[in-house]
Amino acid sequence: MSRFFSEKYSTLTPYTPGEQPTERQYVKLNTNESPFPPSDKAMAAAAQAAGQLQLYPDPTRRELTAAVAAMCGVNADEVLLTNGSDEILNFAFMAFCDGAHPAVFPDITYGFYKVFAELNGVPYRTVPLRDDLSVDPADFYGANGTVFIANPNAPTGLTLSVAAVEEILKNNPDNVVVIDEAYVDFGAESCVSLIRKYDNLLVTQTFSKSRSMAGARLGFGVGQSSLINDLNTVKYSTNPYNINRLTMAAGLGTLADEAYTRENCRTIMRTRESTTAALRSLGFELADSYTNFLFAKYPGIDGERLYRQLKERGILVRHFAQPRIADYIRITVGSETEMQVLMGALREIVEEC
Amino acid sequence: MSRFFSEKYSTLTPYTPGEQPTERQYVKLNTNESPFPPSDKAMAAAAQAAGQLQLYPDPTRRELTAAVAAMCGVNADEVLLTNGSDEILNFAFMAFCDGAHPAVFPDITYGFYKVFAELNGVPYRTVPLRDDLSVDPADFYGANGTVFIANPNAPTGLTLSVAAVEEILKNNPDNVVVIDEAYVDFGAESCVSLIRKYDNLLVTQTFSKSRSMAGARLGFGVGQSSLINDLNTVKYSTNPYNINRLTMAAGLGTLADEAYTRENCRTIMRTRESTTAALRSLGFELADSYTNFLFAKYPGIDGERLYRQLKERGILVRHFAQPRIADYIRITVGSETEMQVLMGALREIVEEC
Repeated sequence: MSRFFSEKYSTLTPYTPGEQPTERQYVKLNTNESPFPPSDKAMAAAAQAAGQLQLYPDPTRRELTAAVAAMCGVNADEVLLTNGSDEILNFAFMAFCDGAHPAVFPDITYGFYKVFAELNGVPYRTVPLRDDLSVDPADFYGANGTVFIANPNAPTGLTLSVAAVEEILKNNPDNVVVIDEAYVDFGAESCVSLIRKYDNLLVTQTFSKSRSMAGARLGFGVGQSSLINDLNTVKYSTNPYNINRLTMAAGLGTLADEAYTRENCRTIMRTRESTTAALRSLGFELADSYTNFLFAKYPGIDGERLYRQLKERGILVRHFAQPRIADYIRITVGSETEMQVLMGALREIVEEC
Repeated sequence: MSRFFSEKYSTLTPYTPGEQPTERQYVKLNTNESPFPPSDKAMAAAAQAAGQLQLYPDPTRRELTAAVAAMCGVNADEVLLTNGSDEILNFAFMAFCDGAHPAVFPDITYGFYKVFAELNGVPYRTVPLRDDLSVDPADFYGANGTVFIANPNAPTGLTLSVAAVEEILKNNPDNVVVIDEAYVDFGAESCVSLIRKYDNLLVTQTFSKSRSMAGARLGFGVGQSSLINDLNTVKYSTNPYNINRLTMAAGLGTLADEAYTRENCRTIMRTRESTTAALRSLGFELADSYTNFLFAKYPGIDGERLYRQLKERGILVRHFAQPRIADYIRITVGSETEMQVLMGALREIVEEC
């Protein structure tokens, strides 16, 4: 820390992204990336947009906003595009949290919520998941703060129904409830339609997972226009040109090829089911996942050890050295081939122990 | 404003980006974009990177950081890449300003400094430019706050020498001095070499202007590693993957083609000199510019009127409805052809008045 660093950040602990190794080719199952390349249309559109890089992007992001709104069945003024969904989440912490409006989120969830709270000097309270690692909606009634729930939740892979989210919204009429749907496209239900009834709902989504665009950084928020206006005030005060031309073009190309996205999601869900079955037959314990990852543990081998032994075998998964979930590893659902390599390695590891 | 918007932002006035019209083809001289397309190598690299969008970008941005460091003649740990230079400026307001360390900047300068101060709840003080709109370095000695100086300054186009900046650094040993060099590549002197001697210096630059990459959003900061570490703490707490794969690739392609950048800068500087001469013969008053724009006024016609009459003729320039500079228009130096169109229109306007 330099002698100039503001005291307000003296205890700030940054987010730790999953490893992106460059020294060796791994079977990379640690950051929930898609095993499929982006749509051909996305690639072609990005390549074409590269010829106009000398011009700033449209700060209103009109064309892509309209396309995302159409996909979600909402109006353009109910959508805000951001540089990944991390940016819309940070904007929500900035816009809707402060000393009088603390952040409230599960004790086990996306690790960035805590970082955003600390970054913005916002007090926060965590709500313990149930013993089975599911969210009890009633625990969030009358939360007295801005609620952040990843649904499906990460890294557990479990989900709340739209009806359960609606009860949370009803029971927090004077606070914003942010539903982070980064993983919604793999079989869970989206809450986007609830924005018609609830002015306190912000839904966030991303192009990173289901649309094979993690490398392009594109996310968005959906809510009533009054909420989106506030978030736009923050956006225009932070990074008016937050979506670059290349990403904007790739996003439009991807949305023009929704059949490809849906087919990829179906394939990933099939692979997820077969891998879940294979893990269970090997003795792993895991709940049904609603995401593109599996959260699994093996009786008698802790998560750290599984992580290390897989890494030695050229396979990266994610392990969280954190109470209640230290026994688990989080495994991205990759291609069928990658899952076979994974299962082969796990069989070896289990036999050796 | 929704009923949920944090009170801390109740008076926040966002930055107003220059118009990016979509309804009509204008001669666009309002946002200091380059008249030249990006390097062929940038385009090819971006197109190639599009095939790997399913993978997150390298959060350490190792390869491009090394290339930028080499270009600047510094070490890789003395560089932080950001989503445009706006992001590094915002990070500097976050990291180095607070209640005890107000921001200090000229009264007439890049409009975003004020917005960043307000966004971050940082008190700020403005220092009036001299009557000729130049910065008096002595006014910033013992500033008792974090200093932000655009050098060359926008929208004036005037510059301080490296020796003058060094005096400011010497006379603020306990405060960070940020030198925003967005326009440095058009004939001004960079202060980057001063980071060897001063641990309180942060220099920011951008690929937007001289490198024809406004649409890709790529900027960076250069300073001693202790400062860069602090800024990285903020970066990893805000947007760990802040540079997307496409932009990263385009940046590498551009740096592999520095001859193209230099040639474009020389052309723009030649066009700037001939346009300056043409404007003066027509009766405009303007100082020599060290940037890719001209800041000019015409006795008896205010800037608002010049702006409107040019817009009616299909030419966009920028006008600032702000004390001391309301008479001026800021004109981006475009291609020779664009400047001829501009001069033709200005001749008409001047004759009609």
